[in-house]
Parts: sequence; C-alpha cells; structure tokens
Amino acid sequence: MSLDAVLSRLDADLPAATERLLDLLRIPSVSTDPAYKADCDRAADWLVADLASIGIQAEKRPTPGHPMVVGHVEGDGPHILFYGHYDVQPVDPLNLWNRAPFDPAIEETPAGKVIRGRGSSDDKGQLMTFVEACRAWKEENGTLPCRITFFFEGEEESGSPSLIPFMKENAEELKADIALICDTGLFESSTPAIITMLRGMLGEELTIKAATRDLHSGMYGGVAMNPIRVLSNVIANLHDDQGRVTIPGFYDGVPELSNEILASWDDLKFDAEGFLGSVGLSVPAGEKGRRPLEMIWSRPTCEVNGIWGGYTGDGFKTVLPGEAHAKISFRLVGTQDPHEIRKNFRKHVEGMLPPDVQVEFKAHGASPAGQMSIEDPAFEKAKQALSDEWPMDAAYVGCGGSIPIAGYFKSILGMDAMLIGFGKDDDQIHSPNEKYDLESFHKGMRSWARVLDALTK
Amino acid sequence: MSLDAVLSRLDADLPAATERLLDLLRIPSVSTDPAYKADCDRAADWLVADLASIGIQAEKRPTPGHPMVVGHVEGDGPHILFYGHYDVQPVDPLNLWNRAPFDPAIEETPAGKVIRGRGSSDDKGQLMTFVEACRAWKEENGTLPCRITFFFEGEEESGSPSLIPFMKENAEELKADIALICDTGLFESSTPAIITMLRGMLGEELTIKAATRDLHSGMYGGVAMNPIRVLSNVIANLHDDQGRVTIPGFYDGVPELSNEILASWDDLKFDAEGFLGSVGLSVPAGEKGRRPLEMIWSRPTCEVNGIWGGYTGDGFKTVLPGEAHAKISFRLVGTQDPHEIRKNFRKHVEGMLPPDVQVEFKAHGASPAGQMSIEDPAFEKAKQALSDEWPMDAAYVGCGGSIPIAGYFKSILGMDAMLIGFGKDDDQIHSPNEKYDLESFHKGMRSWARVLDALTK
Repeated sequence: MSLDAVLSRLDADLPAATERLLDLLRIPSVSTDPAYKADCDRAADWLVADLASIGIQAEKRPTPGHPMVVGHVEGDGPHILFYGHYDVQPVDPLNLWNRAPFDPAIEETPAGKVIRGRGSSDDKGQLMTFVEACRAWKEENGTLPCRITFFFEGEEESGSPSLIPFMKENAEELKADIALICDTGLFESSTPAIITMLRGMLGEELTIKAATRDLHSGMYGGVAMNPIRVLSNVIANLHDDQGRVTIPGFYDGVPELSNEILASWDDLKFDAEGFLGSVGLSVPAGEKGRRPLEMIWSRPTCEVNGIWGGYTGDGFKTVLPGEAHAKISFRLVGTQDPHEIRKNFRKHVEGMLPPDVQVEFKAHGASPAGQMSIEDPAFEKAKQALSDEWPMDAAYVGCGGSIPIAGYFKSILGMDAMLIGFGKDDDQIHSPNEKYDLESFHKGMRSWARVLDALTK
Repeated sequence: MSLDAVLSRLDADLPAATERLLDLLRIPSVSTDPAYKADCDRAADWLVADLASIGIQAEKRPTPGHPMVVGHVEGDGPHILFYGHYDVQPVDPLNLWNRAPFDPAIEETPAGKVIRGRGSSDDKGQLMTFVEACRAWKEENGTLPCRITFFFEGEEESGSPSLIPFMKENAEELKADIALICDTGLFESSTPAIITMLRGMLGEELTIKAATRDLHSGMYGGVAMNPIRVLSNVIANLHDDQGRVTIPGFYDGVPELSNEILASWDDLKFDAEGFLGSVGLSVPAGEKGRRPLEMIWSRPTCEVNGIWGGYTGDGFKTVLPGEAHAKISFRLVGTQDPHEIRKNFRKHVEGMLPPDVQVEFKAHGASPAGQMSIEDPAFEKAKQALSDEWPMDAAYVGCGGSIPIAGYFKSILGMDAMLIGFGKDDDQIHSPNEKYDLESFHKGMRSWARVLDALTK
C-alpha cells in the first residue's frame, strides 16, 4: 500500500466528502432538546449506513437516552478505538445566525472557504475526517490497516448521561490498545496538537446563612451579620497575595513540570498578549512567577463562577439578606485528589466564619486531572505524522478544560487516549454561525490517514 | 375646656371610631399598582368627607400621581401640621393572609383585640388616631385648640414621587410651627417614643468589569481576571477588623453622643438579645465597643444589599463572567455629607482595582441624617403628655431607618417634626396579616389629645 495514494484519493474525493458532511449537518441532532429526539436517531442511522458503505459493520445501540453507534472492522496490528459525537448544541439565539443553522453550505470568506452550519466543527465535521480517511484507505487498499472500533456518542452536548453505564456494560467490546478522540483543536489555529494533559474539575456551591429571614437595613443595619459580607470575605481569602490558593493541602500532588516540557511550551511562542487582548485583558492574572501557559494548562485554579444574594433587581432595596450564595470551581492537575480538596475546602471555609453564621455546601462534579502516557511510542508516531501534514511541527499541549471522555477511557477501559483535532479558535462552536474551515476538514482527513499509517507501519 | 372630658369622649366613642377606621380600611388604596388608582382616589374622597364631618375644610389636591388631601382649621396658638398617608402596601402573597386583606375586622387574640387588615397599622389606623382626637376635641369644645393643617399623602408606599414638588409649590400653605408625623411605633412595643434622630441614606450600585465577554473557565481559568473575586475583595476591604468603614473621611461629621443621651438609652434597657434572637442571631455585628442601640441609631453603616454575577441558576456552569455587580448602601448620621461620601467611596473602590479592571457606578438615593431640635419646648411637653398616657415613661429614641418626609419638612418648609406613633414590632406592616392593636388605636387617639393639650396650654 501507499500512503501517497490514499492522500491523493482524499484530495480527489474532497467534493464528495464535503457533500456527505453537508448531508449529515442537515440533520438537526440537538441532544438536549427532546423535540429533536427523532433527529438524533436519524443521525445515528445515517452514520450506521455511512459506515456500512465502506464495509464496516455498525449498529445503532440503544441507551436510556440517545443511541450510541458502534462499528467494528477486524484487522492486524494495534486495535484502535475512534471516538466522536454526532449530537450538536442548540442553535439559539437564532437571530444571530447569518444562515439557517441546519441548511449548511460552503461559504467563501476572506480567510478561505468554510463549511458553515451547526455541528460543522463540533463535532460532525471532525468525526467525519476520520471516517473519510478510512473510506479512502479502504477504497485504495481494499482493507483498513488495523483493527478499528468506531464509537459515536449522541449525548456529548447534554452531559453524556448514558456514557459511563454503556462503557461499563460493553467494556470488553470497546477496550482497545489506544483511543483516538477528534473533538479538540489546533494550537492557536495553526499548530497541530496532541493534548497530553487535561485539568480535572471540582465544583462546589455554598450558601452562607446568618439571620433566619431577610432584614430591613434601617432596622437591623449595623447590628446584624450580613452574609454577603461574610461570603465576600471568604472568597477574598481563598487566594494569597501571590495568587496561590490558601486551602491547606491544596498543592499536594501538583507536579513541577520538567525543563523539557517547559522548553517545548516556550517553543510554542504562545501569544498571551493576543489571547488576553481578544477579550479585553492584558495582564495574566494567575499565580505570580508562572508562565501564562502554565496558568492555563498545568496549574490548579480556584474560580468563582457565580455569586448571588439580596436584592438584585432594578432600583434599590435596603435589605439585609438572610443568605448569600456562590458557585466555586477548581481546575485540578497532576494527582490532586478532588475529594480530599472538597473536604479541605469545606473545613477551610468553616474556619473563616464569624459567630452566628452557618454554611451549607452542595457538591457538584469531581474529576481528577488526566495525564497521557506519552512514553507510549504511538504518541511520537502520531506527532510526527501530524508534523508531516501541517506547515508547523506538531506539539504536545495541555488543556485547561476537562474532557471527561478521556478520563473514562482510562478509568473504565484502561486505555490511553490521543486527543487530536483540527478545530480553530474562531470556529464559534456552541455559538451562532459555527463553521469548520474547509482546510481543517481536508487536512484533517489527510492527518488521520498519516496517523493510521504511522501507527500501523 | 377639660382634657379629661375629651379623653372620656374618646373612650365612649371608641366603637364608632373603630367602625370609621374599618370603613377606610375597606378601600384597597394600593398606590404602587395602577389597577387601584380609582381606589386611591376614593380613599382621598373618604378623608375629605370625614374631615368635613368635623368642620375641617379639606380638599383633594391633584398631583401627577395620587392626590394629596389638605385640610385647614384656623385657631390661636401654635400652627401644627399633621402628616399621615392613606395609601397602603400591596397584599401579596395573598395566600398567607388569614382573612381577605380588605375585609378588615376586630379579632380577639391571646394578646388582646387587634384590628386586622391591610393598612390598619401602616398608616390608616395611625392617621385616624389624630383625626379621632380632633373629632372628640371639636365635639367636646366646639373648636380645635389651635391652628391645624392636615396633610395626607397617597404615594408614601410607592416612593412619594409627587411629594417634593407639591411641598415646594404649596410651601406657604403648608408651613407651620411644627409637624406631627404618625407613622412610627412604640419602643419595643411598650414605651412611647419620640424619634429625634433619623439616619440618612446613600445608595450606590457598582459594576466591576474585566473581560469584554463571559469566558470559559477551562480555557481562561487561571489566566484571566475574575471580576467576582475583585468585587469580593473590594467588599471585604470596606471594613477593618474593628468593624469600622475604611473609606477615607467616612467618619467626618459623626458625633459622639452626650453622656446624657447614652444614659437615657441605657435606661431603655434595650433587649438586644431578644431583638437579635428573634431573627436567629446572637452577637451584635457592628463596630467593636459600641452599644447595640448605637449600632442601630447613631453609628453610620456600610452594607451590601445585593450581589450578583456569573451563573446563578441550577446546576453548574464553569463560566468566568465579564462582570460582577453589587448594591451597597450607607446609613448616615450627624452631619455626614452623602455627596462627599459618594465621591470618597468611588475613589476608594477605584484605588483597590487590579490592572485590566474597570468599575462603573450608578447613584441611588442620597439623604443626610436628621436631627430634631429637642431644645424646642414642644418636645418636652409632648414627651410628658405621652408619659401621662402610657404605663412607661416616654423616651427620645433614634431610628435606624430613613423617614424622608421628616427631612423634607426641615429642608423645604423649615420646620422640625415630631415623629410619634403607636405601632408595635409585631404589626406585620408590609406583610400578610397586618394588624393594629385596638390598644394602639385607643391609647393613640388619647395620646394625641394629651399632646394637643400640652402643646397649646
């Protein structure tokens, strides 16, 4: 077989591949809205049929929510699982779209051709880059290069309620040597990237309670404890003047990066000024003495995501509220233990309360950070394959967010995941006018052909 | 003339007086809701007719909102203006009322008879105590004891939008030697009180802005400034560890009370424990080293009345908001200058902001504190008259709230006001099941007869 022949076929077949993607994009598979249940089902059917068209035995598999699509093709060499999701975000506010979100089209823009429509980047377009690479490979060579399991989810945009049970029930069937996930982007829209670190997440909601009811500040102001002031004090004291989190034990399990990794990140020449400038900021606001990329990828954080209490409507009301609330989240790295941190956070807050004040906590999600085993030679092979396709060399990068599926592959199926994707920062995923660059689609499928070649040579 | 005869007549006439009040309470004069506009008008008509029935020439006077009622009776001696309001608060939540709010009745309770219904205490019942005292006086003596102006407002519960223009336009007509205001209560439901200090009020709303839009904490968390944290820091730093406000110049014009006043307040044996305990608190939370009554009446405060920012709905959203907001109010005393404090507060907040953060302010109300001239012999006379009526001696007290009308009488009409009222702490004004003790109504009218007698002797 020849990789070049596959790549040429992908080039020649691009118009047809694009038509197939547009066809899939026309199905409004919004998973979070029950009104689109049948459409989600239809998208799953479409994928089963498309996989069948290239000789892959696939099935729609029921869950309590939207179906999974699972397909298998046998082969020699490593067993690869590929994951993507066929569901999409809701489209509102509809009036901000320049075209109907489920009437996709190729549009010319000053920056080049784009595929415009809901799901074009997140994640139907990305999912199809891998399917198209397999199609070209199969058509060129008659078989695929190795054993591959296709695993498509229909609930990613609505919290993946069926994912863990389904993975547990079908663990033997889904377990492979490595997972490939195509739901991320290029680094700064230009450098192909493999994510090797994912931050974990811990969510806490707290309610500070003082008086048993709202009080009038004319009557009680000056003598009664104000829970908003107490909450503000708690939040103000969660960081020290170096920007470090003050919860005892918080930095247990936070690793210092190797000089090698730090050097490779420096090589990325991250445009912190542009990154912050695009949202009106100029000064990295994290821990003193840390690089901006460390702040985002490899340092833990404590952020307030919401706060409320007292009168928040128009005008003014001189109320002394009985309660005040905040939602606080922690991004976790290394081997930080979310449950230990939850415990220590609660104790820390309780220790800051003045008399007459109580606190109630509500637990939201808790997931540890993820760290891929880049010692596995597959990582270096994939990295080289990506470097061969794109103008810039590929990089191992971190991810400030949490991509739970990668953690589940590790914890439930015991396999590492390679997160490779071709989205760009301006794709407007989850927003009106979502697009996927035709270049991302085209070079994305070529990238997968190269990765498959590299992993199976 | 004989005061005793007037008091006896008031005793004998109590059932008829109560019927008159019930009649007025049946009119749903909710000023804030346009649906009750005709009812407000009807309440004004009722008062004009009732004043006419005791020989007082009164008129309904139009305003852009609900009408004023102004009545005059000529006479010798001091010219007294009496103020009350005929409008009432809305009644929702209706389901918490034990009877229809505008179907008032006398109810027997373990603590004695009460008049139950919206407006019974605030302020129709209180207003009628003075009218009934005048009626008995007139019927007993043929004339009233001095020149009296009756001034009833219909917009007190909706911010008094017409009050200042009306007072300015009719200043000559309304100006008297002293104003009597019946819209307050007994001290701790038992001691007759004349309010001689009213705290002023300053309202500020601030918006802390960082990024130009909401950010995803997975992408920006750790590197982007969080305005909720900035706002919390600002609030946490508005007080020092002694509970004093940190704004430069804030205490300019805050007087230390004379030993005489402090001693008289100590004589009141204020039940701070019970006052706080009734709302689930136990520790006075104001400035260290101050008596609870000082905290409420004679010390300035800075309170947060509302705070909001980021995601405040159910569940969790890892947003880094672009903005955070708070409503902050100051209770002012002595000669504190609200405009100076507004200026200093804004400068103080601006001085606390880190880079990349802006603040926007919105001004809400500003009114200085009020201090009555108790050197005027009228105060001592009225105090003695109240002491003669009630089991406990009357007291000069402060008021933690702001009663703007008293300030307007001073600033627009140049006259002091005596705030005397017979409401009790458990009257549930502004709440479901409002009531006025029959004792408050009865001894209230007797009190006014005594005060009129004392002021005109």
